[in-house]
Amino acid sequence: MSSATLFPQHVIARKRDGHLLTRDEIAAFVRGATDGSWADYQLSALLMAIFLRGMTPEETALLTDAMMRSGVVADLSSVPGIKVDKHSTGGVGDKVSIPLAPMVVACGVPVPMISGRGLGHSGGTLDKLESIPGFQTGLSLDAYRAQVRRIGCALIGQTKDLAPADKTLYALRDVTATVECIPLICASILSKKLAEGIDALVLDVKFGRGAFMKTLPEARRLAEALVAVGRAGGKQVRALLTAMDEPLGRSVGNAVEVAESIACLRGAGPGDLMEVTYSLGAHMLILGGAARTLEEARSRLERSVRDGSALARFREIVVAQGGDARVVDEPQRLPAARLQEPLAAERDGVVTDVDAMAVALAALRLGAGRARATDRIDPAVGITCLVKRGERVTRGATLCVLHANDETALAEARLKLLGAIAIGDSSPTPTPLVAETIL
Amino acid sequence: MSSATLFPQHVIARKRDGHLLTRDEIAAFVRGATDGSWADYQLSALLMAIFLRGMTPEETALLTDAMMRSGVVADLSSVPGIKVDKHSTGGVGDKVSIPLAPMVVACGVPVPMISGRGLGHSGGTLDKLESIPGFQTGLSLDAYRAQVRRIGCALIGQTKDLAPADKTLYALRDVTATVECIPLICASILSKKLAEGIDALVLDVKFGRGAFMKTLPEARRLAEALVAVGRAGGKQVRALLTAMDEPLGRSVGNAVEVAESIACLRGAGPGDLMEVTYSLGAHMLILGGAARTLEEARSRLERSVRDGSALARFREIVVAQGGDARVVDEPQRLPAARLQEPLAAERDGVVTDVDAMAVALAALRLGAGRARATDRIDPAVGITCLVKRGERVTRGATLCVLHANDETALAEARLKLLGAIAIGDSSPTPTPLVAETIL
Repeated sequence: MSSATLFPQHVIARKRDGHLLTRDEIAAFVRGATDGSWADYQLSALLMAIFLRGMTPEETALLTDAMMRSGVVADLSSVPGIKVDKHSTGGVGDKVSIPLAPMVVACGVPVPMISGRGLGHSGGTLDKLESIPGFQTGLSLDAYRAQVRRIGCALIGQTKDLAPADKTLYALRDVTATVECIPLICASILSKKLAEGIDALVLDVKFGRGAFMKTLPEARRLAEALVAVGRAGGKQVRALLTAMDEPLGRSVGNAVEVAESIACLRGAGPGDLMEVTYSLGAHMLILGGAARTLEEARSRLERSVRDGSALARFREIVVAQGGDARVVDEPQRLPAARLQEPLAAERDGVVTDVDAMAVALAALRLGAGRARATDRIDPAVGITCLVKRGERVTRGATLCVLHANDETALAEARLKLLGAIAIGDSSPTPTPLVAETIL
Repeated sequence: MSSATLFPQHVIARKRDGHLLTRDEIAAFVRGATDGSWADYQLSALLMAIFLRGMTPEETALLTDAMMRSGVVADLSSVPGIKVDKHSTGGVGDKVSIPLAPMVVACGVPVPMISGRGLGHSGGTLDKLESIPGFQTGLSLDAYRAQVRRIGCALIGQTKDLAPADKTLYALRDVTATVECIPLICASILSKKLAEGIDALVLDVKFGRGAFMKTLPEARRLAEALVAVGRAGGKQVRALLTAMDEPLGRSVGNAVEVAESIACLRGAGPGDLMEVTYSLGAHMLILGGAARTLEEARSRLERSVRDGSALARFREIVVAQGGDARVVDEPQRLPAARLQEPLAAERDGVVTDVDAMAVALAALRLGAGRARATDRIDPAVGITCLVKRGERVTRGATLCVLHANDETALAEARLKLLGAIAIGDSSPTPTPLVAETIL
């Protein structure tokens, strides 16, 4: 490949015309995004060409690899054991990482976990954890490595050393309508995850109204691509396709989701949240060599909850990251909102629908999330005690409790929630939480 | 259409997903390109989406109209008569505008002509005219209008007031591999031409090795789109599809092409050049109301050459634009190169091929053109006395004369020209110069 053919416009033209990009062409693109040698308008033209022309799994694997290598790749080889992480494509009320990581660590599998922040309707693990007074997520890669070695887990935020090309490309995709593109999504997710220094990854690919992928077939396409590209990167990868039509658990917000996660670690979490956590955790234990069958793995996870070892690990993580570990036993130490108001059912009946997206927008209105990346979130606000689809209610019963710090926001969120929760006469058909597993 | 849906990323997403863009969406895009309210990376993402998804004639007409209105639209209503211009998609040795405009003006039709500069293999009318000592092409729109009113013609360069959106978009297209896209080409050409204040336009859409469109079907698609979009803009538009496999005429360069144009106006131009000039001019006379049939139009044009009126008009234009009109009678006053060297035939035979693109690259090497927009051209250098396909030559006969100011460039151009001219034993099949007319 002569350097002349690697002018940005030549690489763009090749993808525009439907050709496969070579390793060198993909490397030139990613280098261009990292060192600024491609102009933003050239990056965005190629992103659009990739969006419309697609990329094969091989090209996507090359893109992922180049993006991963655009920055530091954490070296966790000094940490014994098979390091396994979990990644979710994002949902409403999805706090699974918080109870899951300590459970898996308690079962002997290290979990190095670098998470993102919430944006739009989707919450972020980092934001939730930071509602614990003192909890630090901005660890350096050295501190991250040391903590994983010492206690088997660290729950930290993306550092600017990891996959910097993704930062540039993601920011451009967001403003050029090139987000919803499977090869670009794969490369974005996996370049960051593979740069963590993990050996294996379990993916929670959500589908439904509250998810990025609205339908099961779309989610399946993404999951299959993620698994194939992760494998091409030399990692063991599995994906679960999980439903995201109603929120996961009964709480949506930040501090309220930490409280629910702690309940989970005490074995008192909502059924759907426990189910998704155990399902993902079981695959993590198998990939981490801590169990041979899903049944064995699940019973180990359940035991880690019963015997308190998972909760102990969570406490250890909170302490290690500077948080006030007293919240584990005294959740009232978490930030609380000034206003707490129940929403009452207007009729007797059965809950036929809880629209995850509408609930998310209500939580966003309360201040629990970010409409823009620069918005500040309010850790205290959110929704708790949310009814679940299929539950029977009587007139006046609590459908949920709103936690607010502003009367206007409360009134508006209340209206959104009333519209989000449908009550009917006959029970809705139950749908499975875990629709498929891609091994 | 609410303003919320006109965020750049929403407009981009609509075209990306194959929808038709509305008038408001197209207006938002063009306004964004003009006032900077869209970032370059958003413009380029939409350009790529348009490249890959296409645009209907209706969308292209809306785009053309919005781009035309992005700046000043010249008002020539004070000039009596139907104002007709000609535009060529560019070729090698294409100096047609220079003899054509005075001929058409001599027949009573005003020709307001705003031209471009040469880039790459394709020469520019402005560069050629500027080889006439003193000739000014940078007239203001007021001076342009006054001159058209006074003498029926002005041959000027693009001003920054005319279709400024095109300037931004064209510069981006050039570096994002979005040039070769019929709707974008149409809008770029026609937005500038319609902003000239013309009533009718004859297009010379070239096809072949030396043209932008390599094949007749491609050129036909472009020509049909140009005619349809021009009509949608309320103008009378016709297109001729003309061959550009070998250079037009026998000279390629700047001063040498002016000299050939003057020969043309004296009735002594090469046959192919006269033919294309008369063919285009005939349609201009019909559109301008100066003839009813092509035969009548053609005989009027021929008469303007025979009776010297066309040459007189050319002289008038040169004088009006500050040029040294003595060049008309004394072409030796045009810039001349230091080195003039004939290229001799290496064998007896018949010229079976003169590759326009290879000749263009030889002229570019001599310094007659620009590889980049910022390059300076040398007005004196070029190629003259070029043999034409089908002509018989004997060993040692002159295939062409090179005009150079640099020995190395001369030697390299010589080699390129040797490769460009093929001599064989049997006459090649003649091909028509004007392949089709789209009325």
